[in-house]
Amino acid sequence: MLDAYRSAWTDVAAHLRGTPIAILPFGALEQHGPQLPLGTDTATATEVARRLAERLDAVLLPPIHYGDTWNNAGYPGTLSLSPATVTAIAVDLGRALADSGAELFVVVNGDWGNRNPLAAAMRTLAVEGRLRAIALDYPGMDAAIEAVRESRGAAPGLNHAEEAETSIMLAIDPDAVHPDRFAPSYPVFPSDFGTRPMQLHPFSESGVFGDPSRATAAKGERILAETVEASLAVLADLLPHR
Amino acid sequence: MLDAYRSAWTDVAAHLRGTPIAILPFGALEQHGPQLPLGTDTATATEVARRLAERLDAVLLPPIHYGDTWNNAGYPGTLSLSPATVTAIAVDLGRALADSGAELFVVVNGDWGNRNPLAAAMRTLAVEGRLRAIALDYPGMDAAIEAVRESRGAAPGLNHAEEAETSIMLAIDPDAVHPDRFAPSYPVFPSDFGTRPMQLHPFSESGVFGDPSRATAAKGERILAETVEASLAVLADLLPHR
Amino acid sequence: MLDAYRSAWTDVAAHLRGTPIAILPFGALEQHGPQLPLGTDTATATEVARRLAERLDAVLLPPIHYGDTWNNAGYPGTLSLSPATVTAIAVDLGRALADSGAELFVVVNGDWGNRNPLAAAMRTLAVEGRLRAIALDYPGMDAAIEAVRESRGAAPGLNHAEEAETSIMLAIDPDAVHPDRFAPSYPVFPSDFGTRPMQLHPFSESGVFGDPSRATAAKGERILAETVEASLAVLADLLPHR
Amino acid sequence: MLDAYRSAWTDVAAHLRGTPIAILPFGALEQHGPQLPLGTDTATATEVARRLAERLDAVLLPPIHYGDTWNNAGYPGTLSLSPATVTAIAVDLGRALADSGAELFVVVNGDWGNRNPLAAAMRTLAVEGRLRAIALDYPGMDAAIEAVRESRGAAPGLNHAEEAETSIMLAIDPDAVHPDRFAPSYPVFPSDFGTRPMQLHPFSESGVFGDPSRATAAKGERILAETVEASLAVLADLLPHR
Amino acid sequence: MLDAYRSAWTDVAAHLRGTPIAILPFGALEQHGPQLPLGTDTATATEVARRLAERLDAVLLPPIHYGDTWNNAGYPGTLSLSPATVTAIAVDLGRALADSGAELFVVVNGDWGNRNPLAAAMRTLAVEGRLRAIALDYPGMDAAIEAVRESRGAAPGLNHAEEAETSIMLAIDPDAVHPDRFAPSYPVFPSDFGTRPMQLHPFSESGVFGDPSRATAAKGERILAETVEASLAVLADLLPHR
Amino acid sequence: MLDAYRSAWTDVAAHLRGTPIAILPFGALEQHGPQLPLGTDTATATEVARRLAERLDAVLLPPIHYGDTWNNAGYPGTLSLSPATVTAIAVDLGRALADSGAELFVVVNGDWGNRNPLAAAMRTLAVEGRLRAIALDYPGMDAAIEAVRESRGAAPGLNHAEEAETSIMLAIDPDAVHPDRFAPSYPVFPSDFGTRPMQLHPFSESGVFGDPSRATAAKGERILAETVEASLAVLADLLPHR
Repeated sequence: MLDAYRSAWTDVAAHLRGTPIAILPFGALEQHGPQLPLGTDTATATEVARRLAERLDAVLLPPIHYGDTWNNAGYPGTLSLSPATVTAIAVDLGRALADSGAELFVVVNGDWGNRNPLAAAMRTLAVEGRLRAIALDYPGMDAAIEAVRESRGAAPGLNHAEEAETSIMLAIDPDAVHPDRFAPSYPVFPSDFGTRPMQLHPFSESGVFGDPSRATAAKGERILAETVEASLAVLADLLPHR
Repeated sequence: MLDAYRSAWTDVAAHLRGTPIAILPFGALEQHGPQLPLGTDTATATEVARRLAERLDAVLLPPIHYGDTWNNAGYPGTLSLSPATVTAIAVDLGRALADSGAELFVVVNGDWGNRNPLAAAMRTLAVEGRLRAIALDYPGMDAAIEAVRESRGAAPGLNHAEEAETSIMLAIDPDAVHPDRFAPSYPVFPSDFGTRPMQLHPFSESGVFGDPSRATAAKGERILAETVEASLAVLADLLPHR
Repeated sequence: MLDAYRSAWTDVAAHLRGTPIAILPFGALEQHGPQLPLGTDTATATEVARRLAERLDAVLLPPIHYGDTWNNAGYPGTLSLSPATVTAIAVDLGRALADSGAELFVVVNGDWGNRNPLAAAMRTLAVEGRLRAIALDYPGMDAAIEAVRESRGAAPGLNHAEEAETSIMLAIDPDAVHPDRFAPSYPVFPSDFGTRPMQLHPFSESGVFGDPSRATAAKGERILAETVEASLAVLADLLPHR
Repeated sequence: MLDAYRSAWTDVAAHLRGTPIAILPFGALEQHGPQLPLGTDTATATEVARRLAERLDAVLLPPIHYGDTWNNAGYPGTLSLSPATVTAIAVDLGRALADSGAELFVVVNGDWGNRNPLAAAMRTLAVEGRLRAIALDYPGMDAAIEAVRESRGAAPGLNHAEEAETSIMLAIDPDAVHPDRFAPSYPVFPSDFGTRPMQLHPFSESGVFGDPSRATAAKGERILAETVEASLAVLADLLPHR
Repeated sequence: MLDAYRSAWTDVAAHLRGTPIAILPFGALEQHGPQLPLGTDTATATEVARRLAERLDAVLLPPIHYGDTWNNAGYPGTLSLSPATVTAIAVDLGRALADSGAELFVVVNGDWGNRNPLAAAMRTLAVEGRLRAIALDYPGMDAAIEAVRESRGAAPGLNHAEEAETSIMLAIDPDAVHPDRFAPSYPVFPSDFGTRPMQLHPFSESGVFGDPSRATAAKGERILAETVEASLAVLADLLPHR
Repeated sequence: MLDAYRSAWTDVAAHLRGTPIAILPFGALEQHGPQLPLGTDTATATEVARRLAERLDAVLLPPIHYGDTWNNAGYPGTLSLSPATVTAIAVDLGRALADSGAELFVVVNGDWGNRNPLAAAMRTLAVEGRLRAIALDYPGMDAAIEAVRESRGAAPGLNHAEEAETSIMLAIDPDAVHPDRFAPSYPVFPSDFGTRPMQLHPFSESGVFGDPSRATAAKGERILAETVEASLAVLADLLPHR
């Protein structure tokens, strides 16, 4: 594994000749309640990407710290990119990686809002056909969360600033977590929630969607570990053969 | 000073209400010879931004790790964004900061290739008029370099992977520097260098443009300190009055 | 209910003043095996839209006959729009409907590939805030298919040119179905299918993904009816109150 | 002739191998007075296209039901696409047809506002050079109208919702025509009409520009027939030779 | 009349306060056979614009020397802009003129290929509604040409580098005309000429489409004068009332 | 040297075969105080370009009369193009010149605001690699101004409508200069001038930034001559070898 950020180009070039895989964490600067940092999505994606890079002996790229997080843009401090910008970043980096000799470009996506823009980027790279490109939306994470969760989420499929995400941050960066601010929040959702694009701040003051008080680092570690294993399974058949 | 990456949105929101200044390091993943890491520009911009944030009690934003570094794109590992992508990132973040209550958006630019795209972004934000936005291209740094430099640069105004940049990285992150690889390189430039867009790899094998062997952390510290002071002078009249 | 295609503008204008709802079927011209017509997605979306318009006394718009169907573009006769074109069509029509007095714009999407581009359009319209806009991706249809299906699908969630779609077309337009060509096809999928953008023709000669031979019009009718009911449930809270 | 909408891809693929011609009706959802349906332009273009497809044994594509009809956008129910969207649709479909083996792409344009955007698309396809592409703006129709017309038009070259268009719809779809609403309308045009882009609703309440009361299906049939003949003459030298 | 190119901004500002009309010649650098200069279209548009400015006491803007002349791009020396660039120039200038206090923006278009892109620009300015904008495509010129012409044109409506255009240049800038190169040329046109976008060089070696040998300055002067009169008639009702 | 504007395409084609160099003056219509014409930048660039064309026996192209002059857009009569338009013009013309056989495309830029947009265009052309393209920003001019200047400028590097520019116009087109309006103006600049995009009209009523009263044609001639020599030195190594 090689951390591109702190490595010389000559070392990265040599590493890619041996293992032509590069892994990019794509995060967001997004509200995660009063108890978790704005960088939660980036930190999580970076941790998953780092573990994948170690397992695959890949080049770990420095993260994109911002994503398309329009849904949370009503909470000050959240800084959202437009979807076109997210797509452009991933396409530009994919092309540059192909120029650098990479054969597999893995994007570890940490933000729900990046899904569609990254899918668009992956398709553009697929059409160009210069390298394999895949955006991982945390395969296995939902199942892992279900297995450890003790409190219910605020809505199906919405694991935001609650037990699961708080557990993950306790595992990754406990000093950035504020346990004194753990407070459950189960907003009353608009009846059309989930059916069309919608921002969250009109019906959630804190930005918490569940109960962080049952969070533990051990749960977070298990979620991360299972996500990494499931990601490796997805990647298994894409790996360059040398 | 508040580090947005590790802070909750509620803390950032409160901080911006008191001091509505946000500082973004805009770097690049760009070759810096065999002795310096690809993240040199980002590390430098982040260090300058961090010091400015401390002095101004501002919100420090997590860095953009990639920039428009087409000139160096021929060195594998260098991953360049297109200029339009650089502009889009800065415009998107400027707008989001205005939504979040910031009144001054300072971009600390660490990469030569970002200058024009960031100038375009600053103008767009100026026309929109929702907050003051300024991109700092290291004011004072050239003078500081001249004051400490013991080896000549390879070309006027081109301080790339030589004594000055190596000194800066020795001051910021010495473990990422490879002193055993310090080797001077004074390429023969094409006669039209500097007059039109041009990539560097055709005439420089290593990507070093000068002599890193005289680099010291003390020189780097002085360059950083003087750049910060000059930056503060530029910013003095832009600060919000509270 | 008013069919805009065959109605005068004065009648549509009057109808929208009473019931300001417009429904657009968004289809595709996409291969559906040798037994079903290229217009299958459009026909299905139009039928669902027509029933919804009747139930809601809405204006039924004429369908978009083409969609983003890049996955099937390798089968001649399939004519795919780019995702940007799909988004542009939906945004243009949403704006024009707001100008015409509509308050709710329902897009009945008949093509998997349109999902992301239509979601982007819905968000643009949501940000503009001139009318409520929602793209329905056949709510309830998967459950209805599971309830009637006698043959297995070729892959989870991929109901393409098999028992379910053939049943639907038998219910809508039996003369356009070729029962003499019913032939099961269970392709061997690439191991990375579903994880990244991929075209289908390299591993499926006929374009059939399952077994059409168990299809019946009754099953199709049930699928349609349950999709309509589930769609009405989704729309219930979005309806303009008069 | 093959109707792509109701044909399987395998049949369309085979047909294009024999006769590589595809014909697309490009219409509009545009006001045509109180007596004619919004779909008048699409219905007319589809009828002409169907007849051409029969004569040339071509593949008939399902119509585009919307066009650039900004001039009429002030009449509710008219839904106009932007010119860029019209161009994009035609370019996307032209490229997809080339991929599908077509050698001649005939667009039968039914809407005045589509002329410029379709001309732009045809030029793009001409530059790409993958197939011949032509947009027909009803050659012969003006002469045919002059030959049958008994009432004068409201302005030279403006045959909108008057005797000619009403006759055409009586020939194509008489049940969609409201004879009880036939009312002549000769608006007073602004003196600069025809010299610069202008919307029609400020000076025409009904959207009728002439006198529909003399319309007959026989006149409509003659207009259609002569337009088809003139179109065939234009196409004669473009036909693929097999 | 004020020539903006050679006038101070203070004079132009004052003039626009009295007569808020600005006139822009939009030309092309396009082949006009061996006997006429590449700047023929610009020279003609500039002459017509100058005369209009005198008659209307308007501000004459310096010309755009390049246009969309793709049809002639196969003749070296012809330098064509893309249609989007032509549109952008006219929109930018129209907006800037509105900022400067102009109320009427007259574009005198000298190039056939600019028609559609300028029409698109005029519509954008019409929608924005900040000033009246009109592109004149030489009203009255065809009739004037018919009245003086002694040789036939090579194709209906195609007056290119033949008797008429040569006469105009003899009237405007006789020293730039090469009478020794006057040579008739009546190319054999492809049978589909005029029905779809097409370049001219494949069937015309010289770029002449008619017979320049009957050209005289007097004919040119008459064509110009009648074009100016017809243009004034078109503009009559658009003039600002003071 | 050949003046393309008044030359036939056949002559330009032949000339480019012998000397494949084309020179484009890129100006602006920009306020230059009450004493100088709006076309000052274009006139200057055209004069420098004409002299270069004579020295290099190149093809002189007609000028672009408009540029990106947003800084001065607050003075009526100034007509600014957007930066994207400036870039598009230069890219379009560079491509067309490559098609016409040119091997070197020299843009003589007369307007500060065009620098970044033209640099972007030059890079695009460099990446395409079809011809060498260079934008000259008046090399040598600053030194020449310093050598002749008797009055100080209003700000470092800002030579606008003062002694130097007035001298240049006295040398090029003295009849367009108003000596009776010579009036020094030394505005009080905002403290952040030069650090971020900013318009000039809020702090300068006349648009003069210095003292035109010491201007002479002889100074202007010397500035022009030295700029031409320095430009030739820059171009020396780019010239095509025949």
